[in-house]
Amino acid sequence: MKKIKIGIVGGTGYTGVELLRMLVIHPHAEIVAITSRGEVGQSVQNLFPSLRGLIDIEFTDPADTDLTRCDVVFFATPNGIAMQQARELLDKGVRLIDLAADFRIKDVNTWEKWYGMKHACPELIAEAVYGLPEMNRDIIRDARLIANPGCYPTAVQLGFMPLLESGVIDSGYLIADAKSGVSGAGRKAEVSSLLAEAGDNFKAYGVSGHRHLPEIRQGLSIMAKKQVELTFTPHLLPMIRGIHATLYARLNANIDLQDLFESRYEGEKFVDVLPKGSHPETRSVRGSNQCRIAIHQPQESNIVVVLSVIDNLVKGAAGQAIQNMNIMFSLPEDAGLNVVPLLP
Amino acid sequence: MKKIKIGIVGGTGYTGVELLRMLVIHPHAEIVAITSRGEVGQSVQNLFPSLRGLIDIEFTDPADTDLTRCDVVFFATPNGIAMQQARELLDKGVRLIDLAADFRIKDVNTWEKWYGMKHACPELIAEAVYGLPEMNRDIIRDARLIANPGCYPTAVQLGFMPLLESGVIDSGYLIADAKSGVSGAGRKAEVSSLLAEAGDNFKAYGVSGHRHLPEIRQGLSIMAKKQVELTFTPHLLPMIRGIHATLYARLNANIDLQDLFESRYEGEKFVDVLPKGSHPETRSVRGSNQCRIAIHQPQESNIVVVLSVIDNLVKGAAGQAIQNMNIMFSLPEDAGLNVVPLLP
Amino acid sequence: MKKIKIGIVGGTGYTGVELLRMLVIHPHAEIVAITSRGEVGQSVQNLFPSLRGLIDIEFTDPADTDLTRCDVVFFATPNGIAMQQARELLDKGVRLIDLAADFRIKDVNTWEKWYGMKHACPELIAEAVYGLPEMNRDIIRDARLIANPGCYPTAVQLGFMPLLESGVIDSGYLIADAKSGVSGAGRKAEVSSLLAEAGDNFKAYGVSGHRHLPEIRQGLSIMAKKQVELTFTPHLLPMIRGIHATLYARLNANIDLQDLFESRYEGEKFVDVLPKGSHPETRSVRGSNQCRIAIHQPQESNIVVVLSVIDNLVKGAAGQAIQNMNIMFSLPEDAGLNVVPLLP
Amino acid sequence: MKKIKIGIVGGTGYTGVELLRMLVIHPHAEIVAITSRGEVGQSVQNLFPSLRGLIDIEFTDPADTDLTRCDVVFFATPNGIAMQQARELLDKGVRLIDLAADFRIKDVNTWEKWYGMKHACPELIAEAVYGLPEMNRDIIRDARLIANPGCYPTAVQLGFMPLLESGVIDSGYLIADAKSGVSGAGRKAEVSSLLAEAGDNFKAYGVSGHRHLPEIRQGLSIMAKKQVELTFTPHLLPMIRGIHATLYARLNANIDLQDLFESRYEGEKFVDVLPKGSHPETRSVRGSNQCRIAIHQPQESNIVVVLSVIDNLVKGAAGQAIQNMNIMFSLPEDAGLNVVPLLP
Repeated sequence: MKKIKIGIVGGTGYTGVELLRMLVIHPHAEIVAITSRGEVGQSVQNLFPSLRGLIDIEFTDPADTDLTRCDVVFFATPNGIAMQQARELLDKGVRLIDLAADFRIKDVNTWEKWYGMKHACPELIAEAVYGLPEMNRDIIRDARLIANPGCYPTAVQLGFMPLLESGVIDSGYLIADAKSGVSGAGRKAEVSSLLAEAGDNFKAYGVSGHRHLPEIRQGLSIMAKKQVELTFTPHLLPMIRGIHATLYARLNANIDLQDLFESRYEGEKFVDVLPKGSHPETRSVRGSNQCRIAIHQPQESNIVVVLSVIDNLVKGAAGQAIQNMNIMFSLPEDAGLNVVPLLP
Repeated sequence: MKKIKIGIVGGTGYTGVELLRMLVIHPHAEIVAITSRGEVGQSVQNLFPSLRGLIDIEFTDPADTDLTRCDVVFFATPNGIAMQQARELLDKGVRLIDLAADFRIKDVNTWEKWYGMKHACPELIAEAVYGLPEMNRDIIRDARLIANPGCYPTAVQLGFMPLLESGVIDSGYLIADAKSGVSGAGRKAEVSSLLAEAGDNFKAYGVSGHRHLPEIRQGLSIMAKKQVELTFTPHLLPMIRGIHATLYARLNANIDLQDLFESRYEGEKFVDVLPKGSHPETRSVRGSNQCRIAIHQPQESNIVVVLSVIDNLVKGAAGQAIQNMNIMFSLPEDAGLNVVPLLP
Repeated sequence: MKKIKIGIVGGTGYTGVELLRMLVIHPHAEIVAITSRGEVGQSVQNLFPSLRGLIDIEFTDPADTDLTRCDVVFFATPNGIAMQQARELLDKGVRLIDLAADFRIKDVNTWEKWYGMKHACPELIAEAVYGLPEMNRDIIRDARLIANPGCYPTAVQLGFMPLLESGVIDSGYLIADAKSGVSGAGRKAEVSSLLAEAGDNFKAYGVSGHRHLPEIRQGLSIMAKKQVELTFTPHLLPMIRGIHATLYARLNANIDLQDLFESRYEGEKFVDVLPKGSHPETRSVRGSNQCRIAIHQPQESNIVVVLSVIDNLVKGAAGQAIQNMNIMFSLPEDAGLNVVPLLP
Repeated sequence: MKKIKIGIVGGTGYTGVELLRMLVIHPHAEIVAITSRGEVGQSVQNLFPSLRGLIDIEFTDPADTDLTRCDVVFFATPNGIAMQQARELLDKGVRLIDLAADFRIKDVNTWEKWYGMKHACPELIAEAVYGLPEMNRDIIRDARLIANPGCYPTAVQLGFMPLLESGVIDSGYLIADAKSGVSGAGRKAEVSSLLAEAGDNFKAYGVSGHRHLPEIRQGLSIMAKKQVELTFTPHLLPMIRGIHATLYARLNANIDLQDLFESRYEGEKFVDVLPKGSHPETRSVRGSNQCRIAIHQPQESNIVVVLSVIDNLVKGAAGQAIQNMNIMFSLPEDAGLNVVPLLP
């Protein structure tokens, strides 16, 4: 079987090195180019010694790199980069998976407001497919342009999906209290992400408004088939990887919630509904593409509490991107993604 | 000024060593006895080298220790111990501050259900004063028996108090999503509290029901002057100290929330209302008796989000106990409690 | 190809779950039995949710479990267990890999002194092969009984080996300053391993004498072909996985050290000599069977400083055990061991 | 008693906020100015919420701030700043304590080589007093200009001092294997200090040469009264505060080491010699100005192993600076420094 020729734009961040970690052992993948403005000429294994002996390639200048020979290009870049190159690559027949936010939000005004820039190719937004396989598998297959979901949005949407699709909760008062490891902030030199600042510490941030709010709200509203009201509170955990979303909603029906979730996710390789009464731990998915979910109805109240955990860098970023690639190229959906979580 | 003679029962746990940390520099305190069944004859500074040179006393056997010469005795013991000795000590004129849960819940049936044992002196429950100074300062002053609040209950109640007292929220749907460092589990040999288990990891626990739920519900209902409905979800943080409570409620009035909180806590030495838009960090209270609170109303919705942080071992345990002692003995409320938080 | 039938004795500790993590994706392995006294009847994936969907087997009682149908049995037990069952299994033709210390030390008196018990089958000690493949690959191949090296001994011996074999250092004054993550202490309920004790903290331990000292000294003396003098200082790191050994010796020859190490380890799949001037990080081997080594000669002195890192649970335990199994059964040495380190 | 008027130059780093943490409760200190180029006009308690209610002052522009009204000025700045202002301040009668390295090394060529810049006032170097009170208390008293020791140098020198002064070790082969928390790298936005990089990880750095090497060598040589040979290996710990130095030397005399250390440090308030066989923990000095030391002679060899721990930000920086100030102004040496270590 011919290998898929892969390009990675912006390979020096955490989603970049995660793509590499999984692609170097992917049976059908061949990395033909990896770019970085800051590390031109540097070998990948020098920058990331964890990859020594596994990949023999250098970072190249994006300006000098011909990505049109790729079958698919991953953008592991900051927001606002993929949209500048998407048109040209698509025209040359290259498929594109953007791990940033450029194509996630369908309403361009909303996007421009939250991301603080003008969109470079609004005409492609409609075509872009939101790459949450458990929601959009069928249209991912033929997509040319994938908007890979954000990390918080993945954990929150998978947790609310069965409830909203089946209409058993009051969509007018949803709460997502979400906690993320610091790798979610990226490999950027910022005081607030220092070990001496974020370590041994816990805080909320962006309570008045976080960029993932409109993305989550858009997805939940599609599931509910009406506008939902959501309060989304992100928090920063003193650890590297992992998202834990604690979701609250008011039930408006008497239903077997465990059965609802198990039925909805039957056959899904990367969503694992835990037995009743479970409390999923972030470490149970560390390094893997799994999302694990547990459902609670505390004290026989009419409140449902959903606990949803992912590895923000895998199911919340690079792993889901590869899952999307596998679907697009008719590969087994878990090709290259059979990493056993690292516990302890 | 004569020093207060202090006894500590169960001085080898985290609340015990915290009492010591603050009492050894308290200008009006003299520790005359400290007991431990497991460490009889051991010097305190051997067990806790952080106290070397600061205290010259040994752990004694509780059975052999005459606590009646104390003015006040702190019980830093597991649940169910203080209630066995309270009657005798009170009869001898010794005042008592229980850092465990024996006297926190007024309804004895509720207490026995949640704590899984028969109460040894139900007749004292009515007399016991719930030691949350910001709520009960006046009755603490003359109390013989203080039920020192739990750590989660302290953070949650201080966060909801101004809202419930003023009646501006719907008390029928309150959510407290709370996160605690592992020292809350105590200095007990348990696999689940190992660094290799709880480190680099995050999870909820006790979602179906946690012992602090009835305690919090009782306090909030007093504030609201009616029964409140509360969903309480505790989580375990991969760090040692600190509680962060994220509180959600629906507003039923249009009011300046910042002003409401600032007025309510004016003059309080240990509750600090942060400027609008703030996100309190647990480290900003590390080692200190402060509670810091910020109020948000995200996206101009009718949802109020309160962020409340304390050090679970200080304002959530030993510090608050000393604050109560100071009130009981007419000392300055912050005597011995002027520890500057350790940051970073 | 017929799969190797594998039994695991004591599968609930960290080396047990590590064996499982790697064996469930090993192409030639079939786990036929896993025992635990404490978890009889419990399914493996209930205890370790990270393995959900990957293994469908329950812990059985060691007393009721017929291990003689296995080709090989791993003992992931405390010290003193394997030696009680070794004779019987070997007699039935089962090969045995002990991850504990029962067969590591050739001198039975030394062993009994350091491990504080009588050896149950001293007659097997001579036959047992010390399972450090880079040293003993040829005799591992045909061994019936493997003494899998300790974690510290693996990191220290691989770091000193080229120097001692070539005789370029003074073997009369070797120093190994070693630091380990807390998983090295095992999945045992002990106060000293609590996150609230071992987290955010660093200390040495066992400075006057640690059980790994005689094991390391034995190995180094074989390399040096004479008795070496070694000071070995273990320390506890506030993290879960990883050992970093910092080794000091006085050079007695003028030699290209980088070349010496690269030549010695040429072709070794699991020893990686880093470029000159490197500082290996423990995370660069997290979850993998690699040992990474860097050599320094600071300030042009005659002191050589070797930095050697491994994952204590992999190359320092379960991974090396599987490497030994692969050699014993003529499989590719890296079968099942191609895990890419998890970074960040 | 008149309060000492204090200025702080560069108050936004970790040594700056540590100075503030201790000075705001110092009975004889009054902070009259604090400067920062980056935070002009910002209130101190906004930047450091841990200090809310404790200090009411704003950062001012160094260019606009008259420091000549101060009795003493602390420079909590990067290397190379204090030397540019020292002459002027001294001429105006202001005493100066530099927490950076400008005046630590007596040989200006050595300094310029290691710090990579031209020294701005070499004529002051001879006058500057190296502020290690346990070594130089008498000359600190009258000093105008204090070179506050580095963090590693403090831990290493206090550990070796009794041995070198008494001549009982071979000064030709000293090893200092030192480990530091990340706050030692300062409050600077650097990728290598991110929680996602330095957390859950351990590595050596600067093995070929670290700036603290010449400083330590200078101090040890003064103690030994001859040039010592030292190998110094710094490592980065995945935690915020604390240094642990593990020191190795060959004994050339038969002597009671415990007694040697206890005698040498008798009466010292901030050096605590632990009982024989102890293993000091970094947390036992967390937040305090203590240095705790234990001495070992493993396996009755002729190797002495000294374990020395400090809080790098306190005894290794701000606390020692205040200790120096107290000596200079004839205050009790522990004024403002009676912070009980925070454990757990």
